[in-house]
Amino acid sequence: MAAFCRYLEPSGQVRFALYRAGEADSTQSPQVCPLAKLIDEPTEALLANSKDIFDWTIDQIESIPQPTEAQWQTAPEKFLPPVALPEKVICIGLNYLDHAIETGAEPPTEPVVFSKFNSTLIGSGEDIVLPKLSKKVDYEAELVIVIGKTARHVSEADALQFVFGYTAGHDVSARDWQKGRPGGQWLLGKTFDTFAPVGPAIVTADQFGNASDVSVKMVLGNEAGEEVVQSSTTAQLIFDIPTLVSHLSKFITLRPGDLIFTGTPPGVGDARVPPRYLQHGDQCRVEIDGLGPLTNACRDEMVE
Amino acid sequence: MAAFCRYLEPSGQVRFALYRAGEADSTQSPQVCPLAKLIDEPTEALLANSKDIFDWTIDQIESIPQPTEAQWQTAPEKFLPPVALPEKVICIGLNYLDHAIETGAEPPTEPVVFSKFNSTLIGSGEDIVLPKLSKKVDYEAELVIVIGKTARHVSEADALQFVFGYTAGHDVSARDWQKGRPGGQWLLGKTFDTFAPVGPAIVTADQFGNASDVSVKMVLGNEAGEEVVQSSTTAQLIFDIPTLVSHLSKFITLRPGDLIFTGTPPGVGDARVPPRYLQHGDQCRVEIDGLGPLTNACRDEMVE
Repeated sequence: MAAFCRYLEPSGQVRFALYRAGEADSTQSPQVCPLAKLIDEPTEALLANSKDIFDWTIDQIESIPQPTEAQWQTAPEKFLPPVALPEKVICIGLNYLDHAIETGAEPPTEPVVFSKFNSTLIGSGEDIVLPKLSKKVDYEAELVIVIGKTARHVSEADALQFVFGYTAGHDVSARDWQKGRPGGQWLLGKTFDTFAPVGPAIVTADQFGNASDVSVKMVLGNEAGEEVVQSSTTAQLIFDIPTLVSHLSKFITLRPGDLIFTGTPPGVGDARVPPRYLQHGDQCRVEIDGLGPLTNACRDEMVE
Repeated sequence: MAAFCRYLEPSGQVRFALYRAGEADSTQSPQVCPLAKLIDEPTEALLANSKDIFDWTIDQIESIPQPTEAQWQTAPEKFLPPVALPEKVICIGLNYLDHAIETGAEPPTEPVVFSKFNSTLIGSGEDIVLPKLSKKVDYEAELVIVIGKTARHVSEADALQFVFGYTAGHDVSARDWQKGRPGGQWLLGKTFDTFAPVGPAIVTADQFGNASDVSVKMVLGNEAGEEVVQSSTTAQLIFDIPTLVSHLSKFITLRPGDLIFTGTPPGVGDARVPPRYLQHGDQCRVEIDGLGPLTNACRDEMVE
């Protein structure tokens, strides 16, 4: 059991580190311990720039020595996405019944699948850039599955064996490019640069425990204060995690490091009256039981 | 000016090579010359496993010595996709007016954008696997743009400066998963493993010349013989290449090696009466002026 994160040192070096969440009452900040302190520098460098860790067995992961208290250090404010260059960023739409209803869509009879490009991925603490091209950028808090073993045609009963762990995700969505456009494809609205914050860390499945009833929240903050705008649990998922992994594996070979965004609860800005879209200066925080908070500020794109 | 391909040697080594098309009358086969014969082995190995070549300037590419006749060797029957792991496989839908009409769709007023995962990519000579899950796998011949320089917010006037070259592509499409499904997203129908044959080679933009009026054909063959099932030219594109590159760059950062499938001409199997879907044993050949033929056989998926 472990939690892993990636971040950039001021020197430009990418670090791969163990992650320890802080206390909710802020008496203790999140902490990290670079793997170079525990195993060796070349292995850390390899893991920081590849997807190799996701192929590790539980035994291999447990062979990493536990840090002493002195080896933990205060976490940086900015992280990199915890997976370097996943082969796929897969997303599930309309997967909470109440959210499907609030968007005016029929609850789906099978998973609705779309995708984001890797150029969307940012870490916790990095900025979401609100594109000039959109006036309707919306938030979506999501639990994200991280695939751990190559999976093809796996059953629902076996599916969890192929999950490495979980992280928090934010499926930022430009509604004016997602919907009502020729062809009806959501991709452009979902895939502006920076539209997939993930992290801060990946928590291994054995540490995370049962993912079938964990709280998923989005907290929005600005000068006026904070507000919980989404709050539900994964017990409300129409298609649960084993169903999603099994279903997707019938179409595509899932590979270590692939990310699956599992869908968002009700409360999105586009469904509110009046609508609430993300604004320059907004702070977004995804809170999921057992995962560190995923925090990203919004800023307007600067284009000449 | 040059054409580049990748292939696997029987030893398991990935080769990065110059490519020279054969003669249409078959008096000469396609030929290749591994770059290790012309520059050096480490550089070839680097290019074979990275996207570095797409960042090269014209001067760098022209600094590669021309092979002597004796250095050319007969091309292998199977190639790898000419780009190792593009960051994005972007696809444009309904981009030939006649094709939009044959599908029953309105001609789009702006580019329809969708995507495929990298797990779809195969090279010329590799098999398209017809999934058990679909009864309606269809063919689509397409010209594919290969991005050469990082592009963000580029104008149509400047767009071609960001194009490295072109290759032939086949946007294999499971119509029964593309359309009529909850959410209306095309992704699953477009992204079964092996559903994006590309190659055999990437021809640099300067060698390829004007891409605005080149012939694009799909030839289907089986025991009964061959038939040209799609035949048009890129002069029929609703959104031409500069428009596509400029448009996409307003949403996402295009990076060296990114692939853009530009859409398919009329004649797809799903629009025929009766429909003609791909069958085990069919041979698909994409023919585009100035590019080597992209040839792939179809075979049924074996699942227990």
